Amino acid sequence: MKISVVPTAQQAQGIDFSGKTVIVIDVLRATSVITTALYNGALDVVTVKTVEEADSLAANRNAQPILRGGERNAVRIAGFDFGNSPLEYTPETVGGKHLIITTTNGTQAIQNVKSASEVVMACFRNAAAVVDAIVTAYFALNDVAIVCAGTEGQFSLDDGLCAGMIIELLKQRVEVVTDDLGLLLSRDYRAHRHDLLAALSECFHLRRLSALGFDGDIRYCLETNCVATVPVLRNNKIMSMQYGKE
Amino acid sequence: MKISVVPTAQQAQGIDFSGKTVIVIDVLRATSVITTALYNGALDVVTVKTVEEADSLAANRNAQPILRGGERNAVRIAGFDFGNSPLEYTPETVGGKHLIITTTNGTQAIQNVKSASEVVMACFRNAAAVVDAIVTAYFALNDVAIVCAGTEGQFSLDDGLCAGMIIELLKQRVEVVTDDLGLLLSRDYRAHRHDLLAALSECFHLRRLSALGFDGDIRYCLETNCVATVPVLRNNKIMSMQYGKE
Repeated sequence: MKISVVPTAQQAQGIDFSGKTVIVIDVLRATSVITTALYNGALDVVTVKTVEEADSLAANRNAQPILRGGERNAVRIAGFDFGNSPLEYTPETVGGKHLIITTTNGTQAIQNVKSASEVVMACFRNAAAVVDAIVTAYFALNDVAIVCAGTEGQFSLDDGLCAGMIIELLKQRVEVVTDDLGLLLSRDYRAHRHDLLAALSECFHLRRLSALGFDGDIRYCLETNCVATVPVLRNNKIMSMQYGKE
Repeated sequence: MKISVVPTAQQAQGIDFSGKTVIVIDVLRATSVITTALYNGALDVVTVKTVEEADSLAANRNAQPILRGGERNAVRIAGFDFGNSPLEYTPETVGGKHLIITTTNGTQAIQNVKSASEVVMACFRNAAAVVDAIVTAYFALNDVAIVCAGTEGQFSLDDGLCAGMIIELLKQRVEVVTDDLGLLLSRDYRAHRHDLLAALSECFHLRRLSALGFDGDIRYCLETNCVATVPVLRNNKIMSMQYGKE
């Protein structure tokens, strides 16, 4: 299996991913939110680029009530039901609901990889489950591109370390050839896997979230292999490959 | 001093580097070639994008004979005086000569950073000298962007490790704040600085050059801190900040 790593959502633009499985990673926090929402019983998640799209989509779906979540500059959008903290997406709030989410980086990454044969959302919390799905599911023979969402066009190491973790886990199951960025990230993950928080403590995005008071989110998003939920994109909706809880 | 790292020449396109010192790195092999040529007495080096530009520039400079070097797909261009092997650029061949060089990645990186206040060419062979120039020269107060040339639009870890080395050396001299990619590369360099060849042995570009028979070039380009030559861009020409040999 060939694995390439794209450092930012912006760089994914224009790449032809056809025939590939793309793994989108936005650890802080979009893919952690999506994984949590589906684990906690949300029926599906639609990601859109703009607040206006979220509003008009929600307005047109009155028959099927739909909740809106998302952030701009890490803060909840006015009038929305949720911000971008995974801790808000509880079984009580999202169970049985349809969701629309718009975030700065993660949403853009998902938008830019729609040429892929399969699009899977990963974070530290479901990394092993994603690897299991890729190795055992029918798309196991595809090459893989890991798209790190990044932060405002810059590479973000929280996404990178999660990419490294997924490459390391895949190496234990299949023959892997990776590009230079994948090689770098997998060995950085190996070196720092026992203390991810320390490994990321000087990173821009983590420090910004911490300064905004989101330390609880950070701890939550750095927990590894907690859920078996594998969010996949089907007809522009993200749903769990496995329904029901682990 | 703030340091950002751009992973590829292509990503440098469109970035406004004004007010910054840009360090361009193409270890295998453009910046190693340029450093070697100037160290061995070449008067200046002009980099151009195309073979046609190189030819027409050389033809118009009959009064001042000029030699052409460069590669396409790692191989010397037909009719040129040199390929892209630094070992060809000896005192006998380049001493007192003007050079025009066109390469696939390094040339493009230099082209894309011309908005910078200062453009400096670095490789493993002159890394400490580049750091010394940046810390002691009049542009010491600029923020720094390190542009890794990469290989055909992909991040190349040989450039990345050299960026990591330069960041590590700068940290010993000044207060440094780096972006996530800089953080990652500096700690990867720290972990692997005692055996750069092993650290790069699985890398795409190094393996390709090795397969083409350029192991001598690879060994040469991975030698650290051999020369005090600091190539800088002045009026579209690259010249040594220090004339004469160490």
